[in-house]
Amino acid sequence: MQPLSLIQASKIVDASLERARELKCQPLTVAVLDAGGHLVALKREDGSGILRPQIAQAKAWGALGMGHGGRALAERAAAAPAFFAALTDISGGRIAPVPGGVLVRDGSGNILGAVGISGDHPDKDEACAVFAIQSVELMADGG
Amino acid sequence: MQPLSLIQASKIVDASLERARELKCQPLTVAVLDAGGHLVALKREDGSGILRPQIAQAKAWGALGMGHGGRALAERAAAAPAFFAALTDISGGRIAPVPGGVLVRDGSGNILGAVGISGDHPDKDEACAVFAIQSVELMADGG
Amino acid sequence: MQPLSLIQASKIVDASLERARELKCQPLTVAVLDAGGHLVALKREDGSGILRPQIAQAKAWGALGMGHGGRALAERAAAAPAFFAALTDISGGRIAPVPGGVLVRDGSGNILGAVGISGDHPDKDEACAVFAIQSVELMADGG
Amino acid sequence: MQPLSLIQASKIVDASLERARELKCQPLTVAVLDAGGHLVALKREDGSGILRPQIAQAKAWGALGMGHGGRALAERAAAAPAFFAALTDISGGRIAPVPGGVLVRDGSGNILGAVGISGDHPDKDEACAVFAIQSVELMADGG
Repeated sequence: MQPLSLIQASKIVDASLERARELKCQPLTVAVLDAGGHLVALKREDGSGILRPQIAQAKAWGALGMGHGGRALAERAAAAPAFFAALTDISGGRIAPVPGGVLVRDGSGNILGAVGISGDHPDKDEACAVFAIQSVELMADGG
Repeated sequence: MQPLSLIQASKIVDASLERARELKCQPLTVAVLDAGGHLVALKREDGSGILRPQIAQAKAWGALGMGHGGRALAERAAAAPAFFAALTDISGGRIAPVPGGVLVRDGSGNILGAVGISGDHPDKDEACAVFAIQSVELMADGG
Repeated sequence: MQPLSLIQASKIVDASLERARELKCQPLTVAVLDAGGHLVALKREDGSGILRPQIAQAKAWGALGMGHGGRALAERAAAAPAFFAALTDISGGRIAPVPGGVLVRDGSGNILGAVGISGDHPDKDEACAVFAIQSVELMADGG
Repeated sequence: MQPLSLIQASKIVDASLERARELKCQPLTVAVLDAGGHLVALKREDGSGILRPQIAQAKAWGALGMGHGGRALAERAAAAPAFFAALTDISGGRIAPVPGGVLVRDGSGNILGAVGISGDHPDKDEACAVFAIQSVELMADGG
């Protein structure tokens, strides 16, 4: 298993933002974390809110934390709100159970890291992440 | 883009409190933050509760963090409670999704900072902030 | 015992900043807390660093927390560094043992609150606070 | 005053890492924050430790918080250890008083943001930041 490299992470960030401009998204923040949940690359577009870096990282970190993409976490949070309220504290505020947190898997299904995007509607955030992960020939698992 | 000055922030605080006395509001706390979410000026009226400085700042900070006024954040929080519960932790307790957090924009729409007011009904808190921002010829965006 | 009013606190803030301009201080942040350690009024001058509001409040809070001005706390911290390292954690990061935190006392010696100033050399910070407290005919106790 | 753009911040990150390879530095992490202390761009090289993103941000944030580069903060910390121990708590762990946190100023001296680099000796971290800031024709203030 080959860990996610800075070169791959940087390409994912840039491809996400190119896709965001094509989709005319609001200003986005894109974070790429490695399998250990640690930041590898991040860009915040001009005008993207000051909490967006934390939210983008929390979308990605939450996906890694639970092993499922943000879309699956959002469904679980709706079904088990008290558990997810506890999880935000358990994780020290590092989980955002909402679409836009997407696991990065290799061809064998190994988790290499995660992408988190925040700034527009969660569905659009997620679409940019999925597009970018696939552009570097890895598998996107949004949940 | 001209950053919010202490002179402008002080006028906003004082105009908010003058308006509050005209509207016979409960004792208020008024905080003005710059675009980076850092406190520029604050006044807490006699009798305003000891948590009010934190709440007023959280109303303003939350608006800056997400790029939308507190009224819009309150609507979103009602629609996505688990995500907003997570946001309070992600932000380290710096978000209060409720009317009374109002973005300060210049004539071109740039965000210069935010006003947060706490102490009376959120609608009245917000009305004082909007009045005060407009009194210094800036644009109020309550969400 | 008459609690510190917003009118008094505001005058202290403004007198501190007037004095700072006479002394050609670096851009300052001035915080006034009541006897319970809660913020009553604060102003941050243009160009004063983004951590200055927290430092100014910590100078004032620390003085209230220990019942001694920042100058006395600095001497004690030099003599008992491990204890003061513990105090920063015990207080949740609300203590800054350095000159510029000045207790506000009435004519009978009762503590009404504290002023914290940050931005220039601690001696100059303290001088502005002492001047301002005396200008409203209260007693300044810098430690 | 023109805020630091993502384009500028990205160029600073990339120029820092190019310089680091020329100087044969250990694997680095480079963070660029805006004037409000919020992350704009970050890259962590393969093999750079998992705490490096926090350290790099703390070098930059501390410089912004105090209005002085990390080299000046390191000197002050040596002279006033108790105060700087307090500052780490006051800031919530967002200050690293060590070379490698460098303020970004425009031609008029306005602070536009800060660069923080971590991974090699602080002097080499700082050299990469200074080189990169100058490469985009802004002023580097390491303290």
